[in-house]
Amino acid sequence: MIELINGIAVSKDFDGKLFGRMNKKEDTVIQIGDKKIGDGEFAVIAGPCSVESKEQILDIAKFVADNGAEFLRGGAFKPRTSPYSFQGLEVEGLKYLHESKQKTGLPVVTELTSLKYIDEYMKYVDVIQVGARNMQNYDMLKELGKIDKPILLKRGIAATINEFLMSAEYILSGGNEKVILCERGIRTFSDYTRNTLDIGAIPLLKKITHLPVIVDPSHASGLWWLIEPLSLAAKAVGADGIIVEVHNQPENALSDGGQSIKFDVFKEMMNKLL
Amino acid sequence: MIELINGIAVSKDFDGKLFGRMNKKEDTVIQIGDKKIGDGEFAVIAGPCSVESKEQILDIAKFVADNGAEFLRGGAFKPRTSPYSFQGLEVEGLKYLHESKQKTGLPVVTELTSLKYIDEYMKYVDVIQVGARNMQNYDMLKELGKIDKPILLKRGIAATINEFLMSAEYILSGGNEKVILCERGIRTFSDYTRNTLDIGAIPLLKKITHLPVIVDPSHASGLWWLIEPLSLAAKAVGADGIIVEVHNQPENALSDGGQSIKFDVFKEMMNKLL
Amino acid sequence: MIELINGIAVSKDFDGKLFGRMNKKEDTVIQIGDKKIGDGEFAVIAGPCSVESKEQILDIAKFVADNGAEFLRGGAFKPRTSPYSFQGLEVEGLKYLHESKQKTGLPVVTELTSLKYIDEYMKYVDVIQVGARNMQNYDMLKELGKIDKPILLKRGIAATINEFLMSAEYILSGGNEKVILCERGIRTFSDYTRNTLDIGAIPLLKKITHLPVIVDPSHASGLWWLIEPLSLAAKAVGADGIIVEVHNQPENALSDGGQSIKFDVFKEMMNKLL
Amino acid sequence: MIELINGIAVSKDFDGKLFGRMNKKEDTVIQIGDKKIGDGEFAVIAGPCSVESKEQILDIAKFVADNGAEFLRGGAFKPRTSPYSFQGLEVEGLKYLHESKQKTGLPVVTELTSLKYIDEYMKYVDVIQVGARNMQNYDMLKELGKIDKPILLKRGIAATINEFLMSAEYILSGGNEKVILCERGIRTFSDYTRNTLDIGAIPLLKKITHLPVIVDPSHASGLWWLIEPLSLAAKAVGADGIIVEVHNQPENALSDGGQSIKFDVFKEMMNKLL
Repeated sequence: MIELINGIAVSKDFDGKLFGRMNKKEDTVIQIGDKKIGDGEFAVIAGPCSVESKEQILDIAKFVADNGAEFLRGGAFKPRTSPYSFQGLEVEGLKYLHESKQKTGLPVVTELTSLKYIDEYMKYVDVIQVGARNMQNYDMLKELGKIDKPILLKRGIAATINEFLMSAEYILSGGNEKVILCERGIRTFSDYTRNTLDIGAIPLLKKITHLPVIVDPSHASGLWWLIEPLSLAAKAVGADGIIVEVHNQPENALSDGGQSIKFDVFKEMMNKLL
Repeated sequence: MIELINGIAVSKDFDGKLFGRMNKKEDTVIQIGDKKIGDGEFAVIAGPCSVESKEQILDIAKFVADNGAEFLRGGAFKPRTSPYSFQGLEVEGLKYLHESKQKTGLPVVTELTSLKYIDEYMKYVDVIQVGARNMQNYDMLKELGKIDKPILLKRGIAATINEFLMSAEYILSGGNEKVILCERGIRTFSDYTRNTLDIGAIPLLKKITHLPVIVDPSHASGLWWLIEPLSLAAKAVGADGIIVEVHNQPENALSDGGQSIKFDVFKEMMNKLL
Repeated sequence: MIELINGIAVSKDFDGKLFGRMNKKEDTVIQIGDKKIGDGEFAVIAGPCSVESKEQILDIAKFVADNGAEFLRGGAFKPRTSPYSFQGLEVEGLKYLHESKQKTGLPVVTELTSLKYIDEYMKYVDVIQVGARNMQNYDMLKELGKIDKPILLKRGIAATINEFLMSAEYILSGGNEKVILCERGIRTFSDYTRNTLDIGAIPLLKKITHLPVIVDPSHASGLWWLIEPLSLAAKAVGADGIIVEVHNQPENALSDGGQSIKFDVFKEMMNKLL
Repeated sequence: MIELINGIAVSKDFDGKLFGRMNKKEDTVIQIGDKKIGDGEFAVIAGPCSVESKEQILDIAKFVADNGAEFLRGGAFKPRTSPYSFQGLEVEGLKYLHESKQKTGLPVVTELTSLKYIDEYMKYVDVIQVGARNMQNYDMLKELGKIDKPILLKRGIAATINEFLMSAEYILSGGNEKVILCERGIRTFSDYTRNTLDIGAIPLLKKITHLPVIVDPSHASGLWWLIEPLSLAAKAVGADGIIVEVHNQPENALSDGGQSIKFDVFKEMMNKLL
């Protein structure tokens, strides 16, 4: 079903696919402003789960920039399980992210939840994230295939490797070659962690595809004190980077407080990572 | 966590939720033309995976109408894992479904994959299906909460019962009270079946929510010869109906041939069911 | 991989296997005293999770016998997740079960957890149960292949259909042809139920194997109020029976109280089932 | 449910348990001849899936000893899914392992599948392995609690962290304090790998328990070319070591050839690891 031939993972599943190393051997390097993902360096995307205010996002952006992060994350449109949960600051949030970029130099990575805001994303955002829940929202993927903007595609919570790659193929086949894959934990029967990080997916994907592959240790574990070891594991297996939730006051976060790390924990982790 | 009190499933998760029997005790009955779902009768929605031609859909519609089906299913916009697979006849397919309805009296159930076609769906379609892949496409759910049209919401492939119900809540809280839930199999480690039908979810949901609950035995098993027993099980546990794939020539179907049943198998099953 | 040919499920996995209908077409009927399993009748095995006292087991045995049960279940040796939980009355429990049989005529089904008690089981027990945790305890299976006593083999919590059947093959290939298979729920990501009943496994197994197949709705759901609908589903899909937990005082049960049904619930269920 | 307090994972689940750091703060170091596991060094246990001949095991033992392995693994009694598969050389295999130890100095780690051979294991074996299939064979665990020999306990294929630890508790509460935990991949819906390595379980377990925790990258992935990255990940997250399948001729191995690494691959991996 899958075999390693000359260092490349070969399968009839990948035959003729744009994502496959069978089709394009060399790594895809994605240029974002003066930064790169996929060039052999370990990229760190950091920031809060949600943008909560102009001060909050700027405060966090400055701290992570000073401590080695290269990109800023933060949710403006939040896909929440409950319609009654905080849904994000929406376009206002995008603007705050953009302002933070102007002050720190960190390009912005944020999730798109509706195509109707695509113009605002084109304007304010540097990397458009497709969340796990929309990994097979093919209507969205097709539209993102037509634009010239890097896409960070998260793996669905129960997506097989093949389904994940085929979702990337929707974007690639539309003409947009700038796709970054992100393993963010899969749903299993786990008892203490929110999800299970499929660490083996990283080296597996790196042999199958030329696209960059990063890891989200925050959603994978749901426990702030597992972020550091999982980030070290991501680096050890050859990931191109991580996307990690950092908050100035996790105990007061409007979302995902329990899995966000504090400034001092982030700083210590960055010292070990870089 | 969950308890049965006076025949109603009670949990703090359901407290104050529109979907909950804690909030509204009596069954929601959904009127669709002169047909009903949720009124205590077992409703059968039948038809091909994909609309392939005007003749094919009409031929199948007539047969299933003659043999007890009350609704016609058929995909016009198909969410396929691969961008290179048949994507459906699109708006043309919607029109063929509508014509089949005019000739057989069967209201049409079909999946929506993009909000940009919502006007055509309002015009040609009687029940709008949200597929498993879009169960947490909250942008879509919010829009469907604003219209006056029944929604058939399929459970995501790895959605918990709570997540499933909260997705229904997105529609209900928007003002659209006509939501039909559909269990269609969950992803497990199963070896011979495509998915695992979570049969226990039916009586569980019926105790939690007043919304109608139906079963899709075709996607749950992926094997045509398990459709009949799974449909009988659905009825035995109190489901409000089934949605089932029937094809005039499964061996030549453009999608899902292996899990579609032939005319004679459908006829025999209907005899046992009704 | 798997196909239906002349009503029999065919696969290279089953080729030459003793469990397979490819090898032996007609149903295996297992005679236990004057009772049978696999003869087309729906057999009910009922009793408490654990034997707690002579009075308790006799009281329950009489009630279930009076209400249509054909076999008595009850744990004497209990495999518990914690070493500090109640481990059962052990050999004393086996004797109480045997006495209950003498007074009610119900043959006894109980779990074996250690080969060192095999002689007592040969003496006091009519059907030896292999629990889910020991489904791949091949040492045990091999020994049970050498004796002349029916074996009720439960599916492991994450066993594939093929692994389940191959465990039966260990017993069959040793010379003991009296194997009853039991689907008891598999482990998934379910939120409100203890496990997920794989209802599709029943008709699938019935097409693959000539061995009787029964269902354990108690462990599958963990909720007493789902036992009745799951038992009706088991019958609807062609199971040969059920094994169900019934207790005279579930609220005081030493184990599994929450999933045990009371006498009146059992009585009402039996009226619907038989 | 679980919290980190002063660097220790605290939960009512662990309260009063022998395995818990809440009970014993300092790491348990297990002495095996002149070797140690759990002392902060990264221990490598290497060898073939099965002992196939005296020459084969000695050949492999010499090679892995020369390249940094500290322990020899090899199956003499093999728990196989099919009763018709190679079941191991049994006691003969134990003797070959013991001879290999005498010639290389590597203590022997091998799986016990039946208590009836316990005397031979006491004589020939240094660390007794309990396989994933027997993780909840409590009869076996209780017996192993009474002996004075280190036990390597593998996590069951769908065991929660709590169940895994409670199985260790069976051994500890019997009086045997020498338990090594081994994460070996869990069963998920994965498509290309045999199982999914739960890498997060390692740092999680290390915070909960004082027992050593190692990783089996071979069974976790089933693909020889993922062994190296997964071993590096194991080290990065703080595992106490790995147990890895190495074969002199994987293509002719009697079992698990596809996941065994060749000599040169092992050598290169050891250079990176140590």
